[in-house]
Order: sequence, then C-alpha cells, then structure tokens
Amino acid sequence: MIRRLCVIGVGLIGGSLALALRRAGAVGEIIGAGRDESHLRKAVELGVIDRFEIDADRAVAGSDVTVVAVPLGAMRAVFAAIKGHLAPGAVLTDVGSAKHSVVEAARNAFGELPPYFVPGHPIAGTEHSGVEAACAELYRGRKVILTPVEKTDRKALQTVKSMWGQAGATVEEMDIAHHDRVLAATSHLPHVLAYALVESLARLAERDEIFRYAAGGFKDFTRIASSDPVMWRDILLANGDAIRSLIGRYRNDLERIEDAILKEDGPGLQALFARAKQARDGIATGVNDLEA
Amino acid sequence: MIRRLCVIGVGLIGGSLALALRRAGAVGEIIGAGRDESHLRKAVELGVIDRFEIDADRAVAGSDVTVVAVPLGAMRAVFAAIKGHLAPGAVLTDVGSAKHSVVEAARNAFGELPPYFVPGHPIAGTEHSGVEAACAELYRGRKVILTPVEKTDRKALQTVKSMWGQAGATVEEMDIAHHDRVLAATSHLPHVLAYALVESLARLAERDEIFRYAAGGFKDFTRIASSDPVMWRDILLANGDAIRSLIGRYRNDLERIEDAILKEDGPGLQALFARAKQARDGIATGVNDLEA
Repeated sequence: MIRRLCVIGVGLIGGSLALALRRAGAVGEIIGAGRDESHLRKAVELGVIDRFEIDADRAVAGSDVTVVAVPLGAMRAVFAAIKGHLAPGAVLTDVGSAKHSVVEAARNAFGELPPYFVPGHPIAGTEHSGVEAACAELYRGRKVILTPVEKTDRKALQTVKSMWGQAGATVEEMDIAHHDRVLAATSHLPHVLAYALVESLARLAERDEIFRYAAGGFKDFTRIASSDPVMWRDILLANGDAIRSLIGRYRNDLERIEDAILKEDGPGLQALFARAKQARDGIATGVNDLEA
Repeated sequence: MIRRLCVIGVGLIGGSLALALRRAGAVGEIIGAGRDESHLRKAVELGVIDRFEIDADRAVAGSDVTVVAVPLGAMRAVFAAIKGHLAPGAVLTDVGSAKHSVVEAARNAFGELPPYFVPGHPIAGTEHSGVEAACAELYRGRKVILTPVEKTDRKALQTVKSMWGQAGATVEEMDIAHHDRVLAATSHLPHVLAYALVESLARLAERDEIFRYAAGGFKDFTRIASSDPVMWRDILLANGDAIRSLIGRYRNDLERIEDAILKEDGPGLQALFARAKQARDGIATGVNDLEA
C-alpha cells in the first residue's frame, strides 16, 4: 500500500497508473504535479488525482513513491527541482521509453545515482495522449521493464515492482543498454517509419486522394503517427545512436527490395516476403499475444 | 441477378465475393476454377461455390459473369485459357491490385482489349489468405475501383458495378495510371515497409527478445507482413515503377530524419512529427473511417 503517491506529469501514462492503483485500492492519496494548471485541474475533475501542486518540490514532499512521467527531455529539470525534497526512504521511479538518458539525467541532477531511484518503462500506450486518454486498464497484461543498477536499493525495487503488479502489469528486469537496443527495434523504429510514411505521402500531388482511399492496412500501419510529437522528438534524441543504426540498416534493406523490383527478381522478392511472413506469424501466435 | 457466376481463383477475395453475392440472393449458380483441386473441394465444402472445374475454359462456358481473382502474375495465363470460351454477352472482370499490368495481360492474351472486360479492384482484404478466410462481409462499406477504358461496354460496366453494389461495396471509377499511383502509395508501399521491417529485425542478434517485447504499435505496424508472399511478389513486379519511385522518396525522407537525429535537431523533428500527426489525425476522422 502506497500511502501517498506523487505523479509528476499527469498524462496518458502517469494518469493511467494513478487510475489503476486507485482502483486496486493500492494507494491512499494521489498528488499530481506539472507545468500546466488547467491540465492538472482537468485531472482532478476526472478523478485521476486528488490534488495538485505546480511546484514539483512541494508535490514530492511527504510522498512515499514519486513517479516521473514527463517527456524524456524534461526529466533532468524535474530531477533537479525535486533534489533534496524527497522524504527519507521515499522511492523515485520514472516511465521513460529510453533508459540510458534518464539514468544520465538523474546522475547529473543528483550528483550521483540515488539508490532509491528505480528506472522503469511500461511497454504500453496508445496513439492518444493527455489525461483525457488515461484508463485504468492500460497496463493490464502488459510488460513493465525495470532497469535497476547494482547500487539500486532492493526495497525500493520491490516497492516499484509491487506497484506495477497492482496496476495489472508483469514486471521484468533488464540491463539498460539492452533495453535501449530492444526498444529501438520494437517501438522507436516503427514510430519513425510511420511518421516518415505519412510525411512522405502528404507531400504528393495525389495527397487528398491517397488519404481518401486509405484502407485498413494503411490505417493500422500509420496509426502510431498520431502519437505525441514532443514525446517522440525526445525519444529520438535520447536513444539516437541505437535508432540511427537501425534506420541505416532499414534503408539498406529497402534498397535491396528496390533493386529486386528493378531486376524483376520474383524469386528473391517471394523468398524475402515468405521469411518475413513466417517471422510475423510467429509473433501473432507467440506468448506476447495478450498485448495486441 | 447473375444466373451463373464463374470465379477463377477461389481465395479470400474471390471466395468472399461469392459468399456476399449468394447471401444477397444476387446469383444463381457459382462455379469455381483453379489449379488446386483439394482447394476447390474445400470451397465446395464451405459452401463458397456450388461446383468446380479444373479447366478455366470449361468453367467460363455458359457463365454470365466471370471474375478472375488470381495473383497478378497468373492473369495472362488465365486470359489465354478462357479466350474464345466466354458466351456472347458474357462479362469478364478481375480484382487485381494494379490495373495497368492486368489490362496489358488482357490485351496480349485476347489480341485486343475486349469491350466486355471491366478491370476492377476492391480495396479490401486482410492479412489472411485462402478460401478459409473468406467472409460475406469483407466488402461491406468498402470501395471498389473500376478502371474502364473508352471502348469498355457500358452494359458490362453496369453489370460489374451492380455486382459489387450487391456485395455491399461502393463503386468508383478511376483512370488506370492514376489508380496505380494512388494504390502504390496507400497499399503497395506500406506492405513493402512492413515486410522490410520484419525482415530487418529478424536478422538482429536480439531477434527473439525483440519479437517477445513487441507491443501493440509494432503489431499493428507489421500485421500486413503476414500477407500472401506470392500475391505481393506479383504486385511489386506489376506496379514496379510507381512503387520504386515511392521507395526512393521514402528512403530520402528517412535519411533526413537520421540527419536530424545526428544533428540533435529537436525543433526539426518535432515539426515533422507534428505535420505527420496532423495529416494522420485527418484520416482518422475522414469520410473513409468506416473502412478502418
């Protein structure tokens, strides 16, 4: 049981965690913090948080657990603002989609990485953003990856594990660099590709007709291009090396397909598509299918 | 009312049309044709067709309307096989995803483009293929694009329009070249990108973990990579010029994003993502939303 939870950044991710914990009876009071007062008022109206503070240092004081759920680019400023204001024994965690940059931001802001800080990342979300999109079921059956380091306090780690468990998620641990490589592939690269596709087609002369004749496949494919631009700007900058390396690799793979079309290499195209289909069919029937 | 319908290629597309027309009471007898006898037996068992012929020339004889629903690469051989066997006044149409190549195949096989041939393309499908995936509702609320030419018989055109209307679809007409450019953008390119993504990631060392941590966005994005490899090989070869031009354009757009990451150009990335989000949000609320 968390007596008092502080959520800094009450959007889709932070707001959904608050709703899930409240519904599970796993939390007493929930305090929100953020830069936009009207946004926080909305979160109170929606029953996501009980009250709010504009100043993060006031919000964290007296909280057992603080969850920082702001875009990656704002993490360091939040850490700097709350430094020295967390109660003794209080736990700090975050939900950033790239872990190396968050850990660096914490190390910079706090001078060294605090043992009570547990870096985390829920593998969940929708293309919608903001507290209006928050939902108590968002984490049900989803994975949350925690990336503790050697000096991370075991009790703090246990508290964060238990919190996500009560929100309905399955918690796993992973090395920071490994997390960032895997997520670059499964999440960051697909978002880049979807944004790039919509951007590319939007500049064509047939733009209006293209969007008019967009069928199911195209819509599924580009759904994630409706995601929050600021959040994704920050992810690309925070996990840039891993993402650039995958984009480069992907561009080469596209060039191979272009060449195969030019050479009318039917067997080569069919073999490539068959390999991809087999790999993709494997995912559909895999253990992770509940997360679809 | 179609007294006797002949469907050559009884898979997802041809089979679903048969089911829809039968349910609408719009057809008397349905004859299937195809190369694989066990497949055709299955179609009879499933109630998709009434009977079948292995030889297409026997199947079309006496049919009012013949729908060719084979992969693009097999169109020409089918046209050659049925040449001279269609009854006087009988209508011929197809469902190919690229129209120029089908029209060329018909011109080659028949010597000149027959006036009773109406090139068509239903904008519908799923990543599943085969007659087992056929469903009477597949075309409900979807668009079907017909690409008649000047010499196309108006009565034949009307018959095909009415047939798709009874299957629940909305029929529109389009110029052949225009159709092929628009579909390259809305359908062919996204399929290439999805196949390429799965292929690209499947070769990474972290392959198993990547697919294990694949979340909803990735799954939506790559769903179409489970599509039929032969069908897509043929589409890429049939509409190669338009598709290659779009792949090249897309690779350049990806390179711009890679550069922006390298230069840590936050405002540039955010602006690009915001433009793409706005365009994509426009689709979601657009007239075509019923097709999602």
